[in-house]
Amino acid sequence: MRICIIGLGLIGGSFALALRKHMLAERIFGVDASPRNAAKALELGLVDEVVEFDKATEVADIIALATPVDVIPQLAIKLLNRVNDSQIVVDMGSTKEELCEIISQHPRRNRFVAAHPMWGTEHSGPEAAVEGAFVGCNTVLCEEDKSDSSAVVTIESIFTTIGMKIMRMSPAQHDTHAAYVSHISHITSFILATTVLEKERESDTILNLAGGGFESTVRLAKSSPDMWIPILMQNKYNVLDVLREYIHQLEIFRKALEKDNREEIRATIERANTIRKILDNKQ
Amino acid sequence: MRICIIGLGLIGGSFALALRKHMLAERIFGVDASPRNAAKALELGLVDEVVEFDKATEVADIIALATPVDVIPQLAIKLLNRVNDSQIVVDMGSTKEELCEIISQHPRRNRFVAAHPMWGTEHSGPEAAVEGAFVGCNTVLCEEDKSDSSAVVTIESIFTTIGMKIMRMSPAQHDTHAAYVSHISHITSFILATTVLEKERESDTILNLAGGGFESTVRLAKSSPDMWIPILMQNKYNVLDVLREYIHQLEIFRKALEKDNREEIRATIERANTIRKILDNKQ
Repeated sequence: MRICIIGLGLIGGSFALALRKHMLAERIFGVDASPRNAAKALELGLVDEVVEFDKATEVADIIALATPVDVIPQLAIKLLNRVNDSQIVVDMGSTKEELCEIISQHPRRNRFVAAHPMWGTEHSGPEAAVEGAFVGCNTVLCEEDKSDSSAVVTIESIFTTIGMKIMRMSPAQHDTHAAYVSHISHITSFILATTVLEKERESDTILNLAGGGFESTVRLAKSSPDMWIPILMQNKYNVLDVLREYIHQLEIFRKALEKDNREEIRATIERANTIRKILDNKQ
Repeated sequence: MRICIIGLGLIGGSFALALRKHMLAERIFGVDASPRNAAKALELGLVDEVVEFDKATEVADIIALATPVDVIPQLAIKLLNRVNDSQIVVDMGSTKEELCEIISQHPRRNRFVAAHPMWGTEHSGPEAAVEGAFVGCNTVLCEEDKSDSSAVVTIESIFTTIGMKIMRMSPAQHDTHAAYVSHISHITSFILATTVLEKERESDTILNLAGGGFESTVRLAKSSPDMWIPILMQNKYNVLDVLREYIHQLEIFRKALEKDNREEIRATIERANTIRKILDNKQ
């Protein structure tokens, strides 16, 4: 298979490495809006050849969209306008409702597979690409009944070969769950970093005192605005819903602390501790 | 030196392992309010002998307090009531103002060294003790001018031998900084876990979808209430100050998202990204 990856950053670059490792592509083409990123991806050997977006459907059997989510819907439409009955377009974006709605009436909707391989780090750009990404993580497929079954089988086979498990849910379910288990964590980290930077003007103090706990909690605060602003905007209503609940729970905790209500604080911490059971099962 | 560690959990147990590794103690005694923990610490070889609290000053040259912070001040006073002019009492607690005030007028204040070796994990109990803990981290010493210089030299030497750097600050400075770089992270994690558990009733979904980002952000939510309630209560005013600021910054972010204010969201994320510079310097 000849595969063209559009967007050669953390996700697209790591996907390229995974394809290579498992010899899934006879040739990997790459497209990136940034000439610098495209050149870097070529230099790093992530892709064999850089092409213009307009050439993607001419050179590849499978076109994978790994750009920020705000441009995925338009690019998906443009690609569907050009593919034939054997080519496949797949996306790797973190939101699904907007995309699935935009492409829903396209005459070639059946050549599109809406996917979210749920893996990431706080780094970005082609240099952030890592070998062994995706392994053990889940890929969510949405509306696979609207895709040709042969296309779904091909995409599933690629994701399982690189070490992922497949889950299915509706775009609405996906976006709700993603807000809880991924998007909110980024906001809590961004704001924790902001709060500490605001108050701790002496960065030496942070540097010297911050232990592993702080680093772990604030790690996602390093994440790219170019990737995350579009995700938060596209999943705005779900994210706001979680954010309001999070603020509400913080207010309850604050009041309990103000009133020295040890029993309530203990109940909250003990409830929070049960996350251990869930996360430890995972490992 | 004969050393007695009071509180054989994560910190006390890991300290025992570090003392052994660097052959800093000819014999390590241990005290724990829980007979189960005491027996476990003995079984794991963390301590050579379990003794009653009342025997600590009879058997050891140095007595290290590694209990939850709510009982450190009273235990410190009891120990100071009994030590002679060559024995040393040191603590390893996460708060310093309350302790330093309580012991301030004790006739043997000079035999006490107030210390906070800044290391920890989300685990607790003797089984949580790990080799190589503390390495590369900072120990904060407070009010070392109130301790005999020979006692300070001995304690500094122990902490530097096990791989730590020494910092000095006042109890008030320590507690303010600790609220920012440690205590608030625990609250944000506890409440993130609570929020997600509240909304995501299907724990299978969390299990399957949660990626490394969520796990990292929520890791501290596994932390022990027995350790953390006393810390939050003792450092209540500093913690509330940071918590209010954190909630305030979250509200600003929420409003920016509600109004689709991309510029403000970008400015916040870019500001948060600068934490990278600070944390990466650390490594």
